[in-house]
Amino acid sequence: MTGVFSAADHAHMARALLLAERARFTAHPNPVVGCVIAHADKVVGEGFHIRAGGPHAEVHALRMAGEQARGATAYVTLEPCAHYGRTPPCALALIQAGVARVVCALGDPFEQVAGGGFALLREAGITVEVGLMAAAARELNIGFLTRIEQGRPFVRIKLASSLDGRTAMADGTSQWITGAAARADVQQWRARAGAVLTGAGTVLADDPRMDVRLPPEVDVAGSLRVVLDASLRSLAKVAIRSGNTPTLYLHAPHADVPAGDWGQAQFAAVALGSDGRPDLQAVMKALAGRGINEVHVEAGAQLCGALVAAGLCDELLLYQAMTLMGDEARPLLSGLGIQAMEQQRRLHLHEVLMVGADLRLRLRPQG
Amino acid sequence: MTGVFSAADHAHMARALLLAERARFTAHPNPVVGCVIAHADKVVGEGFHIRAGGPHAEVHALRMAGEQARGATAYVTLEPCAHYGRTPPCALALIQAGVARVVCALGDPFEQVAGGGFALLREAGITVEVGLMAAAARELNIGFLTRIEQGRPFVRIKLASSLDGRTAMADGTSQWITGAAARADVQQWRARAGAVLTGAGTVLADDPRMDVRLPPEVDVAGSLRVVLDASLRSLAKVAIRSGNTPTLYLHAPHADVPAGDWGQAQFAAVALGSDGRPDLQAVMKALAGRGINEVHVEAGAQLCGALVAAGLCDELLLYQAMTLMGDEARPLLSGLGIQAMEQQRRLHLHEVLMVGADLRLRLRPQG
Repeated sequence: MTGVFSAADHAHMARALLLAERARFTAHPNPVVGCVIAHADKVVGEGFHIRAGGPHAEVHALRMAGEQARGATAYVTLEPCAHYGRTPPCALALIQAGVARVVCALGDPFEQVAGGGFALLREAGITVEVGLMAAAARELNIGFLTRIEQGRPFVRIKLASSLDGRTAMADGTSQWITGAAARADVQQWRARAGAVLTGAGTVLADDPRMDVRLPPEVDVAGSLRVVLDASLRSLAKVAIRSGNTPTLYLHAPHADVPAGDWGQAQFAAVALGSDGRPDLQAVMKALAGRGINEVHVEAGAQLCGALVAAGLCDELLLYQAMTLMGDEARPLLSGLGIQAMEQQRRLHLHEVLMVGADLRLRLRPQG
Repeated sequence: MTGVFSAADHAHMARALLLAERARFTAHPNPVVGCVIAHADKVVGEGFHIRAGGPHAEVHALRMAGEQARGATAYVTLEPCAHYGRTPPCALALIQAGVARVVCALGDPFEQVAGGGFALLREAGITVEVGLMAAAARELNIGFLTRIEQGRPFVRIKLASSLDGRTAMADGTSQWITGAAARADVQQWRARAGAVLTGAGTVLADDPRMDVRLPPEVDVAGSLRVVLDASLRSLAKVAIRSGNTPTLYLHAPHADVPAGDWGQAQFAAVALGSDGRPDLQAVMKALAGRGINEVHVEAGAQLCGALVAAGLCDELLLYQAMTLMGDEARPLLSGLGIQAMEQQRRLHLHEVLMVGADLRLRLRPQG
């Protein structure tokens, strides 16, 4: 962190963070970014990056500020880009507009930026200060940053359970454990993810659509449905291919895609693990390669348990219904292989709130 | 509800409810009761019933008010008694002190009161208004009222579990799932209960003390430990009989108490159910007969499950640790016999809060 930030600095950056979040359904695979341009308390321009290919946040804000950008401070939630991508570098735009100072929440680890934006600005004599509200800025782009830093998406596993940790009756029925408000809330998490992932078992058992169902006025960028299906045994189920969202089947290298009209389905081979199922690290690497920042998982106890066991659960999004289903009902997670108390998987409660009559917990690995 | 209550009425009754609650560890088997005596905004006396055999709340408040009670309003959280018990009737004391008006939250269903207090007061020309903050007053004495109205105690089942609804490893180890703050919090619930109940299985497996461990400056009336043990197979375990709290073994009618020094142990026969275990309705009736208002249960999945299945869980006190223990670990509740979604036991979330890093949920049956 450089610099000591004033109250006005904090207010402007908080506004820039709010603006950035408006694009959470549309910006991916790009990060969400917000920008505010101000002279002391007075805001003269603001904007955010809406979708990949469109203008960056800084460009929107500079257009609004016009001549008033000269001598102003620009607050940006992520380091301005320094490279010619689909749009010219924002660092140059800030220099040309004559801003005097740039305050950034966070550096951009993307290799074509990675400090280059700050360097360009400083070479032009602009004061650059970094680190204001960095934690909130990091949280906004947790998916993008995980992909860039770790080469895999941020994985969020959604589960709905009873108080005794059960997700379905012994015969598989589970409609409904949680209420309508919780089920509607899930749509927002699907919408912000670049991919919604499930397993062949869930497709066969529940015939789900796994698409995003939000009101038509909500702008949502195209997402991807992903089915892990080594032997392509779930192809007969069509709901998962309904609508306009493409569906990607990740199958075993030796599996042949049978002849047929699979609509918008895409197919890709993925290495198998020792259990004969798609190797989960390879799956995530493949999805990162397709620009997926956040993966939203809705699957059964086996696949969800395997992700947790593999260290591939960055967030557990748990909707807990105030109900008891009994010990004959199906468990939350299978295959964790925990035999002793010291092996239990301790989580950190990131957030808790009521959604309708259900509790929504967001949990992350400790440490 | 009679009368329209003023802001001052509400403030005085709220104070009386707070006073009553101070005796939650000491008043049983009596109800907790608080009393405030006031002229308009001005409080001239207040008190609460500390323990059975001691003065009632009204007497404490009248003593403090002295001559100022004349023409005042008395706010009482429960109907003043009309009978000569261990102390003379409070209704008479209020009449003799010359109060002009009595505002009560709730009538006392106890057969020796049951409207008799109100009748005495009205006959003396005192204005009596009933129903102010009745729900809060009822909640304060939920155990006493359940005992009087239903002939059984209010049953609170305490459980500690992981997010996936597990209470122990497959081998039974469970120390510790929840944190120190949650474990300390449990002591308060034990202290307010007239009896702490467990099963022979838990005594044999865990050798628990099940006593109340609160700081010495906290005044706690004697409680009772109750072990359901049809065959008295757990007698060899001595921790459950340690300290000054008596321990009651409820055993099968045919079981003989073996010769030996069982310390402060008490023994009583109880009818068995068709499963050869103590009949839970009979157990609760027996405890009500001993003046137990609230039973605090700490037991295994089998006994807790049997109580839930028998409709004998008025409150589930669930401490949820932010951890995953896996599907090989032990379940929260056994024997619920739930096979279909429509059989699930829906609960109402009465209260939720964080206790240390754990979530504490209080849940009650719906409807």
